Amino acid sequence: MEAYLDNSATTKCSDEAVKIMTRVLQEDYGNPSSLHNKGMEGENYVKAARSEIAKTLKVNDKEIYFTSGGTESNNLAIIGAARAYHRSGNKVITTMIEHPSVANPFAYLEDNGYEVTYLPVNNMGQVDLDALRQAMTEDTILVSIMHVNNEIGAVQPIEEIAEIVKSVNKDCVFHVDAIQSYGKFRIYPKKMGIDMLSVSGHKIHGPKGSGFLFVKDKIKLKPIILGGGQEWGMRSGTENVPAIAGLGVAAREIYADFDNNIDRMYNLRDKFISEITKIDGVSVNGPLDHNAAPHIVSVSVSGVRAEVLLHALEDRGIYVSAGSACSSNKPSISKTLKAIGLDQKLLDSTVRFSFSIHTTEEEVDYAVSALQELVPMLSKYTRH
Amino acid sequence: MEAYLDNSATTKCSDEAVKIMTRVLQEDYGNPSSLHNKGMEGENYVKAARSEIAKTLKVNDKEIYFTSGGTESNNLAIIGAARAYHRSGNKVITTMIEHPSVANPFAYLEDNGYEVTYLPVNNMGQVDLDALRQAMTEDTILVSIMHVNNEIGAVQPIEEIAEIVKSVNKDCVFHVDAIQSYGKFRIYPKKMGIDMLSVSGHKIHGPKGSGFLFVKDKIKLKPIILGGGQEWGMRSGTENVPAIAGLGVAAREIYADFDNNIDRMYNLRDKFISEITKIDGVSVNGPLDHNAAPHIVSVSVSGVRAEVLLHALEDRGIYVSAGSACSSNKPSISKTLKAIGLDQKLLDSTVRFSFSIHTTEEEVDYAVSALQELVPMLSKYTRH
Repeated sequence: MEAYLDNSATTKCSDEAVKIMTRVLQEDYGNPSSLHNKGMEGENYVKAARSEIAKTLKVNDKEIYFTSGGTESNNLAIIGAARAYHRSGNKVITTMIEHPSVANPFAYLEDNGYEVTYLPVNNMGQVDLDALRQAMTEDTILVSIMHVNNEIGAVQPIEEIAEIVKSVNKDCVFHVDAIQSYGKFRIYPKKMGIDMLSVSGHKIHGPKGSGFLFVKDKIKLKPIILGGGQEWGMRSGTENVPAIAGLGVAAREIYADFDNNIDRMYNLRDKFISEITKIDGVSVNGPLDHNAAPHIVSVSVSGVRAEVLLHALEDRGIYVSAGSACSSNKPSISKTLKAIGLDQKLLDSTVRFSFSIHTTEEEVDYAVSALQELVPMLSKYTRH
Repeated sequence: MEAYLDNSATTKCSDEAVKIMTRVLQEDYGNPSSLHNKGMEGENYVKAARSEIAKTLKVNDKEIYFTSGGTESNNLAIIGAARAYHRSGNKVITTMIEHPSVANPFAYLEDNGYEVTYLPVNNMGQVDLDALRQAMTEDTILVSIMHVNNEIGAVQPIEEIAEIVKSVNKDCVFHVDAIQSYGKFRIYPKKMGIDMLSVSGHKIHGPKGSGFLFVKDKIKLKPIILGGGQEWGMRSGTENVPAIAGLGVAAREIYADFDNNIDRMYNLRDKFISEITKIDGVSVNGPLDHNAAPHIVSVSVSGVRAEVLLHALEDRGIYVSAGSACSSNKPSISKTLKAIGLDQKLLDSTVRFSFSIHTTEEEVDYAVSALQELVPMLSKYTRH
């Protein structure tokens, strides 16, 4: 059998999403900028998706900007806000465990004269709030903190963070990378104090090449891609109507039976963790309880190299990641695992299992039994 | 009947492109950055498309960088090169008739201390080469000139321009926006002296959200979207594998019966122009001969507002553009039409017909007879 347990890297696109995409690609293919009916048709798909998504977050349609995906959303949010608020200050804050699509824009800002603070985390991957309190000043213009960590599933206390940020500088822009959390947690930006929120389509059974950035009304941004002025000037270029339509469908579907789906995933995760931690040499990183996301399990296997385990699992049709699988083919040592203080010896012995709402108990059981067989066998061959 | 004659705005996606996209979205959906088979599968689609496209231009696979579309390609080329070569100078050159996705990045450069020269064109839309000779200096770092103008179809003498540029500064980067020309002209960047070339997928029956930038080996660029380091660090973000695969198929198809297709389009264009210019008050802008692209006809109708004509044609199932239809719903006065010195009274009376390789003679005849009926009728109602 097969068990695709690499859903945090990417997911299979849903049937309904593919169906609407096919229709848009071949029948209703007009350019929304065209003034005739075929253009209007295209525009209507974009409007419908925007409205569908806005509803899930309880925000206004006009606060949703479509992008080419999560990476672009993060770049637009961080570089765009830093440029827009440059006159108010040059201090910006993020954490030591962000995805490269956040960490690298901050490195770019650092190169361009901004003062960046990278907040540490504790051994469960939770941001040090005292460090945030110390770093926040009245001229801090931007704070960007991920909701769910992509490698260990740690969840940050977003509302509490927003309160700390706003209590020091109410005009500081608070951005949340929700690429691993949208569709897994109910997120209400207005209630939670979030000014900008990045989401990717292909992590929730939508198409690759789709994503959006929520930008709260009155928050200023400078666009990073310039041209015909689409998306109210925030993202030029002919709208990717098929992908946007597919994303709208995927968003609707992921919210359709939300609570049951999430409960089911937590049950699978609980069972998986309880079974595999019985195996000698196996440990799980990050919170074991529901302070972690329902879909990510970071597993270290003492004495077994991640790549060896990954390929042994692959031989049995089980697909997982070494590292985060979001950096192009470079399984470099994870910043997140270092930041939580993982034993040096385990840094290169960690793989990530990630579920989706379609993951079955059978698949999880299959992965458990594969690990029960493989781990003792592979450990034997390890030099000490 | 229906005649979609707005193919320069966007095209219908080809059957084969949709077929491969569907397969990638639902079966071979792995993330190319994943180390397992499913990741490799994804990577193989990207490799195949890259190779297919490189072949059409006679360049190396590694010189093709996938983007989210033409607008992003132009932004990456212009902003990316200007940043990379900033130390060699701050002078950059473009024309007065570029698409907003070129013009606005140049405006951004101007705001950021670069000295921009906008070259004028003659009444056929051809760039003033003497003005280029005068503007070029040893510290000009970037020249960007479109191959085919999106509104009137004028073709620039790319090889001659490259010679002028390189004779003054052999290290000056020469970028060509080929979004309206790829698939209509054989383009060989190495022979023609082109350093960077922008292409969009949805103008050649590929999917929206796809495109690429050719960047000649050794030309430096600073990326504008930062993250996991995909596309050799030039364009981070999970590769849009389905769209890239679709683009590869579309490129192959557009080159399949190239010469015959282009001849057929020129024949349709010649017939269309010769018939409609017999109608009182109708004139065609730009070159009437084969110094223009085979697929674009800019038509002015004296005394009839473009929007009125557009909707009258739409009522008969004929879809065209007012202005360029590349700027989000803003039918503002065209810079190109102004630059070629079009009579003030005609600026607001111009529509664009644009063909594709699938446009039939029947559709063109239908458009001709519609204009024969509509123009006299609509002219009557005009105030003078």
